[in-house]
Amino acid sequence: MNLILLQPDDFRDEGLVVLSDDRARHIRKVLKAEPGKVLRIGVLNGSLGKGTVLAVDQQTVCLQCVLEERAPPKPKIDLLLAMPRPKVLKRLWAQLAALGVGRIVLLNADKVEKFYFDTHVLEPDFYTARLIEGLQQARCTHLPEVLVRKRFKPFVEDELNTLFPESIKLVADPAGEKRVADVDFKAKRVVLAIGPEGGWTPYELEMLQAHGFELFGVGKRILRTDTACIALLATLTEYLNHPLR
Amino acid sequence: MNLILLQPDDFRDEGLVVLSDDRARHIRKVLKAEPGKVLRIGVLNGSLGKGTVLAVDQQTVCLQCVLEERAPPKPKIDLLLAMPRPKVLKRLWAQLAALGVGRIVLLNADKVEKFYFDTHVLEPDFYTARLIEGLQQARCTHLPEVLVRKRFKPFVEDELNTLFPESIKLVADPAGEKRVADVDFKAKRVVLAIGPEGGWTPYELEMLQAHGFELFGVGKRILRTDTACIALLATLTEYLNHPLR
Repeated sequence: MNLILLQPDDFRDEGLVVLSDDRARHIRKVLKAEPGKVLRIGVLNGSLGKGTVLAVDQQTVCLQCVLEERAPPKPKIDLLLAMPRPKVLKRLWAQLAALGVGRIVLLNADKVEKFYFDTHVLEPDFYTARLIEGLQQARCTHLPEVLVRKRFKPFVEDELNTLFPESIKLVADPAGEKRVADVDFKAKRVVLAIGPEGGWTPYELEMLQAHGFELFGVGKRILRTDTACIALLATLTEYLNHPLR
Repeated sequence: MNLILLQPDDFRDEGLVVLSDDRARHIRKVLKAEPGKVLRIGVLNGSLGKGTVLAVDQQTVCLQCVLEERAPPKPKIDLLLAMPRPKVLKRLWAQLAALGVGRIVLLNADKVEKFYFDTHVLEPDFYTARLIEGLQQARCTHLPEVLVRKRFKPFVEDELNTLFPESIKLVADPAGEKRVADVDFKAKRVVLAIGPEGGWTPYELEMLQAHGFELFGVGKRILRTDTACIALLATLTEYLNHPLR
């Protein structure tokens, strides 16, 4: 935990925060914080700041918090991900939040097994805790929005363009000729589509292309879903933030 | 398994290969291959090719193999990694091989716990199997070379420049001003240093800088070791293979 992430309703008057949950235990046991120690804090979907420890006892930790004026920039990438195996997604949540994603759409596809959707890993309480863990690791505050869509066609036809009206749309494909360096990153946002382990079907790829997605390649290596998500998010983020000079 | 990886001594005369291990079971049970089916094959540290199934029975699979003339290009990146927790490294092996790394040096550092080195995860039989799994996933043939170095100072002072004589040397650091886009990728190779969870000490960073490493930044996010390895390897690989146009 490189950041103590606070919810707006953790705050009492004038920046006073009293914690008595896992965060209090972490501050006491791991950070071994005593009165006077200054901790990095952040407000969910808000600013970063500093919290001075006022008091620590067996149950609670009191912090006096001061926030920076500006919130950190929002992630510019959204992810359209064919629903992976639950055990893979379980490990991915924190990593996606740490890398920075605005919105995560978990989508059905022909090569997604139906039972993948019957998992506690898709319950909001479960994934929110994992996403927050990732934010606290990476010192970020922007909680990704999560959407689960069990029908590919209606989502692509009816919802996609409304959700991502101005984004560059990219679908990773080993056959893609376009490289990341060829993308015009002046657009405000990017939505990145990553297929299932067996790949999109030709029909799905055509549908995505008909709705504005361009194939792009990142080499001939076939990566596992979790490796591909991290590799492509990181690469795109770096190009978006530091385009060709 | 997107590729059946063969060892040079799997070959009999004239491209004939007879398998009776896990690979035979995979070809039989997962690929459900029958005589006449053509499979993607590769030779460890060698070429890719195709193997036509000649015969399948309960124990063995016979393949008639034809190799391409040229081997795939060798990975251009080497990794100098502060020894991570064994359970993290266990998951990383296959991913590193899939992303493509020439040489992996697992190095001690002040914030590495001593017991991290007492693990079966560092036994060659264990990691070679994981690395091959990653190569078979990604359809690559180049097996990373693995070195384990339990003393930081002698390694950096005496061995580093011999192992990486002509490489650009980069150490990831949140304070790094230089970005990937600023690196002059005309050099033949890059060696990437990634610190322990708690970071390099100032002494270690100075030592690395005194031996040619430049700090480079990839944003303020603090990533877990495994996420950082995948994110940085993928980003550097893309810039190396597709530099600014």
